[in-house]
Amino acid sequence: MVIDRLVERIRELRNPSVVGLDPRLGMIPGFITENALKEYGETPKAAAAAFLEFGRVIIDSVCDLVPAVKPQIAMYEMYGADGMAAYRETVRYAKGRGLIVIGDIKRGDIASTAAAYSDSHIGEVIVGETAHEIYGEDFITVSPFLGYDAVEPFLLNCEKFGKGLFVLVKTSNPSAGDIQDLELKNGRAVYEETAALLKKWGEKYIGKHGYSSVCAVVGATHPEQAKRIRAVLPDAFFLVPGYGAQGGTAADIAACLDSRNSGILVNSSRGIIFAYKDKKYADVPEREFGLAARKACIEMRGDLQKITGDKKNG
Amino acid sequence: MVIDRLVERIRELRNPSVVGLDPRLGMIPGFITENALKEYGETPKAAAAAFLEFGRVIIDSVCDLVPAVKPQIAMYEMYGADGMAAYRETVRYAKGRGLIVIGDIKRGDIASTAAAYSDSHIGEVIVGETAHEIYGEDFITVSPFLGYDAVEPFLLNCEKFGKGLFVLVKTSNPSAGDIQDLELKNGRAVYEETAALLKKWGEKYIGKHGYSSVCAVVGATHPEQAKRIRAVLPDAFFLVPGYGAQGGTAADIAACLDSRNSGILVNSSRGIIFAYKDKKYADVPEREFGLAARKACIEMRGDLQKITGDKKNG
Repeated sequence: MVIDRLVERIRELRNPSVVGLDPRLGMIPGFITENALKEYGETPKAAAAAFLEFGRVIIDSVCDLVPAVKPQIAMYEMYGADGMAAYRETVRYAKGRGLIVIGDIKRGDIASTAAAYSDSHIGEVIVGETAHEIYGEDFITVSPFLGYDAVEPFLLNCEKFGKGLFVLVKTSNPSAGDIQDLELKNGRAVYEETAALLKKWGEKYIGKHGYSSVCAVVGATHPEQAKRIRAVLPDAFFLVPGYGAQGGTAADIAACLDSRNSGILVNSSRGIIFAYKDKKYADVPEREFGLAARKACIEMRGDLQKITGDKKNG
Repeated sequence: MVIDRLVERIRELRNPSVVGLDPRLGMIPGFITENALKEYGETPKAAAAAFLEFGRVIIDSVCDLVPAVKPQIAMYEMYGADGMAAYRETVRYAKGRGLIVIGDIKRGDIASTAAAYSDSHIGEVIVGETAHEIYGEDFITVSPFLGYDAVEPFLLNCEKFGKGLFVLVKTSNPSAGDIQDLELKNGRAVYEETAALLKKWGEKYIGKHGYSSVCAVVGATHPEQAKRIRAVLPDAFFLVPGYGAQGGTAADIAACLDSRNSGILVNSSRGIIFAYKDKKYADVPEREFGLAARKACIEMRGDLQKITGDKKNG
């Protein structure tokens, strides 16, 4: 089960952080984009090639520091079929470097459609008599908005292929509360009810370290709510976005920890992958953007070790 | 504005139905799959080629009868980059045949990520100084679960490019109620509150026929709830899934109509595209599966005309 491997890698590396791969054409180093434009012209293929190259360098630079990376599929889907091919290659490259890959896809649809997403992302797709691994992520993010039957096809593949899910419970964006915070008649908020659903969905898939393969996305930008979600899900594993660029601090993240001072994986995207643009790393030349990402990763690890109390590498 | 064109085409054709393009390898005619396998082997490329061919025939067979088609991206995404290329080609082909295309993508993510989805699906994507239309749908379906800032990038492109949205309010699947039906402290259900949000989001984008570009997805399988949603959104346009294979009847659909006996677009996927497998059309040979789809389309039109009272073509 990949949730067990994730927990073990976090312990080995003493680092509960994940690097979000959200490449953007205007943000990646100019020399990478220029090379790709020279080769492919001003085409989606050029963008896809630039993202693949950029992602490889980031992955090489952080793969011994972090347990996982989280590619954001939207950034690749944006460039059509070429972008999707680059997404797939990025997932494979990261796995080849020993990283656990969390596909940030946030899919959610009715059962028969969810099965198509599930088979292609965390299962296998049969053509004739040949089984294909299409995207091959270890975990994916999914939306709970359509309820159980929309999640079930993902649960089946978690079991069959040893994969995992992060279900959106409370997202990190400013308007997350429009629906997720609505107050219910029973005194709970929608996000607490979602957490309760998730608990039920995940109870059959508990790994050897006590965490279920069915994990929760809980934004770092809402610490009071994170505490309430933790109360509903004392033993669930949380993916915590919102650290760094989105404003969440290490102190905010403390609200997400479980009673073992564990149970979290904290994401930073822009703060790591575009660290070469940060004044803090002004001494690192643009061509060494991987080194800047590495330095930012080490700093984040130290920051998180302060709150988990795991200071041996700090 | 594409919402105006949709309303006009429904009136011209006296037909408020949309054909859902949800191809499945095990369901499309065997001779199409066999040809593709012969050409490309047992690869995702073969599946993509079969879907493209299948979709073209369906589109040719119904394009003078219905205002719109709704390709389900999951079925194409399932086959990786090749599948996404086939999705894009299917969208283009349908537009070339005069159809309005509703991309059933159900995306929903935080603002900066939503912008990537929005630009590629209903806007334009810039590489260097060249603008590309990547997928090019007229409408897309989106999830409201992350709230306003996750929807705003889509609204901006509705305005800039004259496109439209169908926001999930109440879906047609059995577990839709897990979250969407939760009862709120204020006496409403989550789906009514979502409808109220949608009303606010769409009020700046009203077209000349009185409907906003920001429309709602309201399943045909919950007529009592559809009435309550219609009360919150008297002037909104509804996309109504769940007719046919999912169990919704014409009578259920009546609950979705507005005070003008209009304001709906009813989807049928399997009931139309796989009609050649239905006993009712057993006289149509498999190679003429487009004709079976056409017959099923005409029957559905008659069925819907009974409830809209528009019988001239019935």
